[in-house]
Amino acid sequence: MSVIEARTSDIAELGQQLRVDAVRASARAGSGHPTSSMSAADLMAGLLTGHLHYDFDHPHLPGNDRLVFSKGHASPLLYAMLHAAGAIDEERLLTYRRLGSELEGHPTPRLPWVDVATGSLGQGLPIGVGMALGARLSGSPARVWVLCGDGEIAEGSMWEAFAAAADFGLGNLCAIVDVNRLGQTGPTRYEWDTAAYAAQIGGFGWHTVEIDGHDPVAIDKAYAEAARQDVPTAILAKTRKGKGVAAAEDREGLHGKPLAESEKAVVELGGVRESLVRVSPPRSREPRRTQPSQPMAYPSFSVGSSAATRDGFGAAIEALGEANPDVVVVDGEVADSTRTAAFKKAFPNRFFECYIAEQQMIAAAVGLQSQGWIPYASTFAAFLTRAHDFLRMAAIGGADLRVVGSHAGVSIGADGPSQMGLEDLAMFRALWRSVVLYPCDANQAAHLTATMADLPGISYLRTTRAATPVIYRGDELFPVGGSRTLVGSAHDRAVIVAAGITVSESLGAAERLADEGIPVRVIDAYSIKPLDAATIRQAAADTGRVLTVEDHWPVGGLGDAVLDAVAGQVPDVRFHKLAVRGMPGSAGPAEQMAAAGIDSAAIVRATQRLVA
Amino acid sequence: MSVIEARTSDIAELGQQLRVDAVRASARAGSGHPTSSMSAADLMAGLLTGHLHYDFDHPHLPGNDRLVFSKGHASPLLYAMLHAAGAIDEERLLTYRRLGSELEGHPTPRLPWVDVATGSLGQGLPIGVGMALGARLSGSPARVWVLCGDGEIAEGSMWEAFAAAADFGLGNLCAIVDVNRLGQTGPTRYEWDTAAYAAQIGGFGWHTVEIDGHDPVAIDKAYAEAARQDVPTAILAKTRKGKGVAAAEDREGLHGKPLAESEKAVVELGGVRESLVRVSPPRSREPRRTQPSQPMAYPSFSVGSSAATRDGFGAAIEALGEANPDVVVVDGEVADSTRTAAFKKAFPNRFFECYIAEQQMIAAAVGLQSQGWIPYASTFAAFLTRAHDFLRMAAIGGADLRVVGSHAGVSIGADGPSQMGLEDLAMFRALWRSVVLYPCDANQAAHLTATMADLPGISYLRTTRAATPVIYRGDELFPVGGSRTLVGSAHDRAVIVAAGITVSESLGAAERLADEGIPVRVIDAYSIKPLDAATIRQAAADTGRVLTVEDHWPVGGLGDAVLDAVAGQVPDVRFHKLAVRGMPGSAGPAEQMAAAGIDSAAIVRATQRLVA
Repeated sequence: MSVIEARTSDIAELGQQLRVDAVRASARAGSGHPTSSMSAADLMAGLLTGHLHYDFDHPHLPGNDRLVFSKGHASPLLYAMLHAAGAIDEERLLTYRRLGSELEGHPTPRLPWVDVATGSLGQGLPIGVGMALGARLSGSPARVWVLCGDGEIAEGSMWEAFAAAADFGLGNLCAIVDVNRLGQTGPTRYEWDTAAYAAQIGGFGWHTVEIDGHDPVAIDKAYAEAARQDVPTAILAKTRKGKGVAAAEDREGLHGKPLAESEKAVVELGGVRESLVRVSPPRSREPRRTQPSQPMAYPSFSVGSSAATRDGFGAAIEALGEANPDVVVVDGEVADSTRTAAFKKAFPNRFFECYIAEQQMIAAAVGLQSQGWIPYASTFAAFLTRAHDFLRMAAIGGADLRVVGSHAGVSIGADGPSQMGLEDLAMFRALWRSVVLYPCDANQAAHLTATMADLPGISYLRTTRAATPVIYRGDELFPVGGSRTLVGSAHDRAVIVAAGITVSESLGAAERLADEGIPVRVIDAYSIKPLDAATIRQAAADTGRVLTVEDHWPVGGLGDAVLDAVAGQVPDVRFHKLAVRGMPGSAGPAEQMAAAGIDSAAIVRATQRLVA
Repeated sequence: MSVIEARTSDIAELGQQLRVDAVRASARAGSGHPTSSMSAADLMAGLLTGHLHYDFDHPHLPGNDRLVFSKGHASPLLYAMLHAAGAIDEERLLTYRRLGSELEGHPTPRLPWVDVATGSLGQGLPIGVGMALGARLSGSPARVWVLCGDGEIAEGSMWEAFAAAADFGLGNLCAIVDVNRLGQTGPTRYEWDTAAYAAQIGGFGWHTVEIDGHDPVAIDKAYAEAARQDVPTAILAKTRKGKGVAAAEDREGLHGKPLAESEKAVVELGGVRESLVRVSPPRSREPRRTQPSQPMAYPSFSVGSSAATRDGFGAAIEALGEANPDVVVVDGEVADSTRTAAFKKAFPNRFFECYIAEQQMIAAAVGLQSQGWIPYASTFAAFLTRAHDFLRMAAIGGADLRVVGSHAGVSIGADGPSQMGLEDLAMFRALWRSVVLYPCDANQAAHLTATMADLPGISYLRTTRAATPVIYRGDELFPVGGSRTLVGSAHDRAVIVAAGITVSESLGAAERLADEGIPVRVIDAYSIKPLDAATIRQAAADTGRVLTVEDHWPVGGLGDAVLDAVAGQVPDVRFHKLAVRGMPGSAGPAEQMAAAGIDSAAIVRATQRLVA
């Protein structure tokens, strides 16, 4: 075994080793992306020899540089790098894509050297922006390196990242674009025209370097040049897909396939090597700079007054920011509406304005949490759909994210359906291991906001634009998975399960129904996922009649969560689901609630029918 | 009443009228965005006088120019234009944002002069790309004008559109960017630096023109210059938000609010005017150029063979393209995987490569359908989450879209979770008035593909990567809302409801269960929305035991659809839902199905427990 130090003369040789290992791993797996790995092999060899500062024995050191494979399908190259760095042995390398192996088809943090999941293109760079922000905020000298494909430059999210990184002045960020000319189905839009990319990316304020991505000297020089910039750098490297194997090089139709004659290819690449790279140590071994958190001073709204749950969130996030110096906020240019404006004013260095770019907003949060920060991301609930794929990938990567969607439902009023979150519960409930919270009053919103800080995975808080009655005291607790039975007796003839803005409507309905001699139970199901199934099942068993009511489309929200908990579990129960079924137009909040059939009057009518 | 002809001298005067009407409408509504309307009023006045070619009495004439308010919140300006053009009277103008009015907070096609819904920023321009493609394909001389805000330029989807429009050479497209410097919460990223926008957009290959957006001569000249280009043009107009009213002009904190003293503002703007604009007629009054469609030659796969449903779709979309000259396809650089490659080869002029830009892909489809085309949009099911917000807005706009998601579920195998569509059913089911279809064999896929051509609204076809047994003949029909009972008797002890890849697994399980003396019914619920509730309820009533099995997360898919249909409708039924509950890694297709507990063996075990 030879040892490779930081010498450009070694780059070509290491590049061949990385190719050989990528080819071998893919061949053994019978699938994978060797050709996309081979184009970038010299680039990664150059990074590993002298420019990446990293301790593979301690991957979570804050001072470590970060390397993100935005072109996640080139994972065989990443695993070959880990092999060359001595982090994994050959046996493990060859488990690539096998059942139970952490060397997945696309990288995930199941491997300790991978910080975030990639594989949906166009995500690594925006996440890298978040990492670079996080590193800078931590006072870390780490640099963030992102290997990008040329095909993924077509994703709008990349341009959100180019704009944001320049705006944030992230000199610690470097995008390495592997311009190998070929996408999955054929040539990319700009093929080898690195000047076209340079004009575009340069137009966004980045430093750009165009190089031959197989020239060791040029590669080495480009990284050194990137490290000297105080703006982000894009290295636009002209490469050849399948480089090094004549039968594969720059050929169409070979994307995502093992090489046809892999053993011959290994020979053509000079055979198996076993060099070990001595990677440069991190620039710092300091622990993350942080202060201890303090007990939080909860805001308190007076019972009997009215306040919007978004105001409860806004007051809480400011108080939480005061108590916990690790809390950061990203917002999509609507801080006045989401109510993160107070946090922004109080903690400007921990507030990141992502402008109207929801993908970058969620990606920034993913990057920040990977650097130890506790991010809350907020915008209108409706516009979080913009970031659905980023949320999906965040779940795959096990990211700890807190997301807050304001302006949920028809109750926003006259702005109309484009601004109404009516599918957010469905979207967030479907995310893997998500938590979905939907407070009905400002004090509950404040407590749930604070609770989210300690939750693993993706948690979602749905807030309301309109003021709702404050029904809980400021010192009450609302555990995840809990519920509150607000009205109830041994004689209840139905249970109304509500959350958020429909809780007060349900309480009003319960009063009117009681006057009519129909006692009903009202449950505030503020924890929509996990749902308090036991309480709701008991109520269903007690009454035999379940009415759900929600300011959301009928699919995927509270009603379906209740059905899932009760159906087949409790015998002989009748159900009815009130939800928004027609497409709203513009109208006042109360008019909207009435038109959608989810206001107090509609609840009364539906309950009367249900118990009849 | 004066009549305004196409004279630049009239632009300023008309601009004031538009401002006055926007201010009045918002004041009457008590909400709305007058200041964002006032900044763009001169730009729109200039367009209306001489450059927009449009017959307001016949808004659906193919030869009409198209005007899209990408900054949909400036709807008062659009409505003021309609008033100035004589399309709506003053009384109707003042219904803005009122219950039942078609003059909604953000424009929708409920108004005949609006082609697509806007209001979620960053969507109008990508949709405009689709319109411009559609107009060109129709041989229409129409031009597409898109009024954009400066804030929305931060959306990545705008950059997908800038890249696509240049790539497609859309000289018939003009973006008019109202650079008013102020977003919702404060200054935009580039404020009045139109040169920054010009560098960026110009870098993408657009012709750019920087003007003072309140200078009538400059405005008029810019439109004329745009019309002469064979590449798309961006007019970067420096404007002042709230222009014309000192108390509002270029002031922060006034976004989305009626002016404080609206009557005074109207006086300051010169008072109410009643000028009528004589808008230029369309450049053509020809009907849309199209050929009659022919009966489709259905592809046929042999019963007993194996074929992937994506191949059934691929064969059908090619045959449909042959039969119906209005059918077009947009794809996200994965035509070889989605199987639209054959269509692409056969009908290159009706295939639009959107590269890896799923937002632009769906937006192109929205634009194309607004021009009379029948678009099918296809990519991996997982990556359709990228376009969730566009799908949401398409539903609001009543667009007729056919969307096809391939590589659904864990059965794709070794590529891992980033490539698996596991939330697509939840996403599409939650869309308003959507249709969700999930074929289990290639012949069924082909028939459903053809059926979608005639469906209104958004329809979704979920296809599978792996080959599945062909169980239906090529001439069988599969109506939307139907199902197929594949196995059944009067003695069934449970019903297994499956769809897609789990149908053959369920058939295998039924055989094994029959051998064990447990007769079960198997229903192929290929129409997941609308579901064949009657058949499934009857089966539930007949057997008292319902097992659902799906290659999808447990939330929002087939199981929830069945629960919604059966729960509370049929007494005393037990349910069990098989779905993907753990996060998959990489493994072979059969290993994945087994690990997720949705293969034949798992179905047998679950059924045994359910009937025990």
